[in-house]
Amino acid sequence: MAQWSPPPVETTCYPRGFRAAATTCGIKPSERPDLALIVSETLSSAAAVFTPSRFAAAPVAVSRRHGHNGVRAVVASSGNANACTGERGERDAMAMCAATARAVGAAGPEEVMVCSTGVIGVPLPIERIEQGIAQAAEALSATGWDDAADAICTTDAFRKMVGRRWAVGEREVHLIGIAKGAGMIQPDMATMLAFLATDARVEATLLKPILQNAVRRSFNSISVDGDMSTNDTVILLANGAAVNEPIVAATEATEQFDNAVCGVCTELARMIVRDGEGATKLVTLDVSGARSDEQAHRAARAVANSILFKMAILGEDPNWGRIAAALGAAEVEVHPDACSIAFEGTRVLDSGRLVNADAAKLAAVVKKPEFAIAIDLGTGGPGQATFWTCDISEAYMRFNADYRT
Amino acid sequence: MAQWSPPPVETTCYPRGFRAAATTCGIKPSERPDLALIVSETLSSAAAVFTPSRFAAAPVAVSRRHGHNGVRAVVASSGNANACTGERGERDAMAMCAATARAVGAAGPEEVMVCSTGVIGVPLPIERIEQGIAQAAEALSATGWDDAADAICTTDAFRKMVGRRWAVGEREVHLIGIAKGAGMIQPDMATMLAFLATDARVEATLLKPILQNAVRRSFNSISVDGDMSTNDTVILLANGAAVNEPIVAATEATEQFDNAVCGVCTELARMIVRDGEGATKLVTLDVSGARSDEQAHRAARAVANSILFKMAILGEDPNWGRIAAALGAAEVEVHPDACSIAFEGTRVLDSGRLVNADAAKLAAVVKKPEFAIAIDLGTGGPGQATFWTCDISEAYMRFNADYRT
Repeated sequence: MAQWSPPPVETTCYPRGFRAAATTCGIKPSERPDLALIVSETLSSAAAVFTPSRFAAAPVAVSRRHGHNGVRAVVASSGNANACTGERGERDAMAMCAATARAVGAAGPEEVMVCSTGVIGVPLPIERIEQGIAQAAEALSATGWDDAADAICTTDAFRKMVGRRWAVGEREVHLIGIAKGAGMIQPDMATMLAFLATDARVEATLLKPILQNAVRRSFNSISVDGDMSTNDTVILLANGAAVNEPIVAATEATEQFDNAVCGVCTELARMIVRDGEGATKLVTLDVSGARSDEQAHRAARAVANSILFKMAILGEDPNWGRIAAALGAAEVEVHPDACSIAFEGTRVLDSGRLVNADAAKLAAVVKKPEFAIAIDLGTGGPGQATFWTCDISEAYMRFNADYRT
Repeated sequence: MAQWSPPPVETTCYPRGFRAAATTCGIKPSERPDLALIVSETLSSAAAVFTPSRFAAAPVAVSRRHGHNGVRAVVASSGNANACTGERGERDAMAMCAATARAVGAAGPEEVMVCSTGVIGVPLPIERIEQGIAQAAEALSATGWDDAADAICTTDAFRKMVGRRWAVGEREVHLIGIAKGAGMIQPDMATMLAFLATDARVEATLLKPILQNAVRRSFNSISVDGDMSTNDTVILLANGAAVNEPIVAATEATEQFDNAVCGVCTELARMIVRDGEGATKLVTLDVSGARSDEQAHRAARAVANSILFKMAILGEDPNWGRIAAALGAAEVEVHPDACSIAFEGTRVLDSGRLVNADAAKLAAVVKKPEFAIAIDLGTGGPGQATFWTCDISEAYMRFNADYRT
């Protein structure tokens, strides 16, 4: 999928009242930009979702405590995750917030969220980062989003950025999202980060459930290698600069907003899977017939993370036995006698019975760079989930084994 | 690890009153032996452990119902798993039991356990197998164990067989174990099988708990690729032909027997990891400081199955950040501030603090074909577990991706 490149984002989608910038502090050995700054001109409402890892990095611990009364800025460094760095790591993360608050004129460090991504277990070069924050603040501009999106990348093959605009009443509102991650996961380059900013006026209490739902259906519904990061963070900021009629619960405007956030997250998530180090296929798993959506999600995750399934995809082999084996091992209710599996509409298992499917048709499906597999768990329940996964190729292996050696 | 070959088993360990044989039915395209028969001259006590997969294969379903009043024979075919084969699969598995019962003079098919291993989703060539059973019965001999061990292999690189003998009072007793599996897992060659036979007289009710404990500490404490099979089966037969003073609960003789069964299972399990398709390293994970043994086991499994950890091992990289990431994501109580990680005694994380470990020493450890990693979860609890894992190499990938394509 190396040829694939994401569509550009029109600047007409950029939200008002936000500025962004990037700079180079020398954290990355490549000397590419490694510090991103996102600033809201006014205090914005915020919601965030963090990694549940018990080894959550210092910036995650600090950001969890911040932003409860609004956010003025997000600062993100890349090349070093500031994870497993103990008390010093936490001091450094707090220093990043303090330097950012000073540079952008925030009331205090608690109005700043901080993120880091990169190598685990190495202290940050905090002085250089503090200088970088001051430099980035000088460079802030309303069109700096592409620079910020580039600066949060580590080993990503391409920039991940998605925009939306739509009307709320008489006013046009805007939403932008940027993300980094090529997998959950890089060799020590753990971390998936995503930042969304909108100028829509939204009832503050709506942000959290809307973001949580979007994350569940996007960033938590992808698999590159099944590993979870110490730094995963998704932040949604809403500053109200569009001065629309406020979006309040249970209205059509909420539904539009929900769809926009979910859509931006899903597109970013699919980009992360496409960028899965060395991946050659993007496979959509549509699971239905589960007892609940949660059960469907769990079944999809089990298939998506099965190494043997990933190998079958790499080998362009419609080897559904590996899907059955993964489902059978998942802690999920599945009725083998009623289970169905289809590759882009061509059934190979129909209510538990083997189907003599057209081998040429199946071979053509799995040769495509993108295809979908439908799985009915056969319980008769209403649960369903959509999940995206990729293969693991020799390139992934070389990259992840040879790094550092 | 291709150079490694298992030590031979002396025929003096072969248990009395058992005969074994192999034959070729033409299930395997290679035309190598593909049917194994193990027969006890008298009705033996038996215990078995089966895969918990919801897609358990037909022979698993049939064997679960058999042997409750004793076992005369075990029949195993290789090259075809008879899994996901519906009602026909179950009829075929029952036909194998019936043919075996006739051939060896058992009272009925319920005295026969049946196993299959190989490709999923393809019906068995049952007529040829029935002929093969009759042929194998003609070939039975007290020294046929090596033939049987070869016949259950699919893509295994070497035969897996372990023997023990020891004294119970005045009498010498014998235990033999054979296994197949190169991973949990082969390309469609799912299934780990193991058969243990002893001539010791053992109280029948002891067999099940002793086998369950041994399986937990051996076959359930290994990871090649984290995938679970549809056909995994471990069977222990005890026919009492050694005519020793019966081994009864809570005696030294029980402890000896327990150690022997556990030792044979552990050696067979380690052979399976060594044979992990293309694996280059055998890594022992010693987890301690867990709330319970079960928690320690779960933590070890999470590290052992992490793709990124396996890649680090392949790359000979003492990259403990991937261990921390896997522990952080596991559903296990771990105290990062008190957690320690050491490579063969060289600590890299000491009660949550980074250690500037001797890099040359660490590099030397991970270059070895076998080494151990100790992990203390830092809860202060008594739980511990030992787990064996291996890397995933380009050879695994080529083998599992290219198969069938």
